[in-house]
Amino acid sequence: MSEPAFVAGDWGTSRLRLYLCDRSGHVLARGEGEGAAAPDCAGRFAAAVAPWDSRYGSGAHGKLPTLLGGMVGSTIGWKEVPYLSCPARPEAIAAAALRFEEDGRAIAIVPGLKCVNRTGAPDVMRGEEVQILGALSLHPELARGRRIFCMPGTHAKWVVVEEGAVMEFQTALSGELFEVLRKHSVLAPGGGEVRADSHAFTQGLDFFRRNAQADLLHLLFSTRSRVVTGEMPKADGASYLSGLVLGADVDTAVSLLDISPSDTVHLICTPALAALYDKSLAQYGMKTKTLDGDACALAGLVRIHTEVFS
Amino acid sequence: MSEPAFVAGDWGTSRLRLYLCDRSGHVLARGEGEGAAAPDCAGRFAAAVAPWDSRYGSGAHGKLPTLLGGMVGSTIGWKEVPYLSCPARPEAIAAAALRFEEDGRAIAIVPGLKCVNRTGAPDVMRGEEVQILGALSLHPELARGRRIFCMPGTHAKWVVVEEGAVMEFQTALSGELFEVLRKHSVLAPGGGEVRADSHAFTQGLDFFRRNAQADLLHLLFSTRSRVVTGEMPKADGASYLSGLVLGADVDTAVSLLDISPSDTVHLICTPALAALYDKSLAQYGMKTKTLDGDACALAGLVRIHTEVFS
Repeated sequence: MSEPAFVAGDWGTSRLRLYLCDRSGHVLARGEGEGAAAPDCAGRFAAAVAPWDSRYGSGAHGKLPTLLGGMVGSTIGWKEVPYLSCPARPEAIAAAALRFEEDGRAIAIVPGLKCVNRTGAPDVMRGEEVQILGALSLHPELARGRRIFCMPGTHAKWVVVEEGAVMEFQTALSGELFEVLRKHSVLAPGGGEVRADSHAFTQGLDFFRRNAQADLLHLLFSTRSRVVTGEMPKADGASYLSGLVLGADVDTAVSLLDISPSDTVHLICTPALAALYDKSLAQYGMKTKTLDGDACALAGLVRIHTEVFS
Repeated sequence: MSEPAFVAGDWGTSRLRLYLCDRSGHVLARGEGEGAAAPDCAGRFAAAVAPWDSRYGSGAHGKLPTLLGGMVGSTIGWKEVPYLSCPARPEAIAAAALRFEEDGRAIAIVPGLKCVNRTGAPDVMRGEEVQILGALSLHPELARGRRIFCMPGTHAKWVVVEEGAVMEFQTALSGELFEVLRKHSVLAPGGGEVRADSHAFTQGLDFFRRNAQADLLHLLFSTRSRVVTGEMPKADGASYLSGLVLGADVDTAVSLLDISPSDTVHLICTPALAALYDKSLAQYGMKTKTLDGDACALAGLVRIHTEVFS
């Protein structure tokens, strides 16, 4: 059996995924924990790795070095690591990691990225840059030419990578907007589950596309009015609303980032979200390839580790 | 003192305003109560008017007749009154009131309106049609020519009136979207109060207008990113977010309804909302006139009453 060499942690707002890795980045053991927004990251981290420490950590090299990425590096996390400006190459991201020693252990936290996006506003990410680096590591051909990545979720990130460098990105509030509207608005109470293969999801996409000159704000109420007037079953509300929101997301991203039908959009997410975005992008004649989000995060941490700790 | 002749009730989702009126519609007494979404409208109404009944209701004409408008006529209210299709003239709205007798009292509930709006979706209103009729009653000159009304609020209504008939309208989710985002999203926690005269409100308006080709969905995250990167004080979050949302509302309404800079937009709302919309519309060179929402609702009920009960 190969020997443990370091700990990698994908530590987002609401979830920690820990990996015990050997020198080549193979995973020997896994752990989970609460997100970086909960109090006392230092204490919770020490408790989470204590079993590994007691088993492997007393060798010649002391405690296992640890590389962490995600919101753990934000003001609400463990230690704030300043955002690195785009364009940002992988080596620069690794070099900007914040290194410190905690209780005899070498720790490094990956910086987030910032840019001025196409709307002229500042934009930021934390954690997605690790997934991008992981994607480039798992698929080296993506480090050549201009590549479009989309990371659907609470705050969807659309990212342009050129010759392996993160050039710019754009955040859409898609996941969070959908969730707050579904849970807290009058639009879709009892609106069922979102299904990518449903008529209602396609109807929402189509309706946005036909009205792309109107803002989503003037289209959302149709979720309710179609039900109230008997045109749409109540149980279709969530799928329709999701179609509307993702229609707005994709339509604006395609336009802002000059994505052309010949581009492939690389989705980094779960299969369920990939199905929704694949269908949305197909409306614009675009193809997608899906990369698993957790696998990309781990590959990114392993890659950055080799630059930080070797 | 003039004699009580009827009861008028402006009964929305969350609030009941009752007026005891004489034959000319002058208010002799006022009452308040819970909204139409709460259970047992019939029982609550009887309890609310009981003092007036015991004092005035035993005359030759029996209990005071009552006219009600708003969500009381919806499926969640007292009795459902079908939506009347646009274009709708005031006489047709009055004629479509649902009349019934309850416990010896003649009651009529005003219908809501429906149309197919400019996006091609069905659109509905309940209660705003009463305010429109009240506005035309208080300002008869508005019943001539093409007039644009805007009723800001949870679901903002933009209404086109031609020669006194409600031709079409458009609902924007402005108030509700702002509230759910402020309360339940990461965008503007601790974002202070919304001020129409603040730099942040203007900044939100300007930012939307410069990026009107992008959907609000891709602009909302700037509320957070400007704070995170130190560009905007946290306490400006709510005003900035409000500027963004109202920018999207006004920009789309102006475009969809072909509102021209020579049009005056008649705002029916509170002074606080009027200040925000006045500033938003001024960006497009438009003037506004503000009409008080409660006064318009009362005037509308009085007007419809004369057609229903006389």
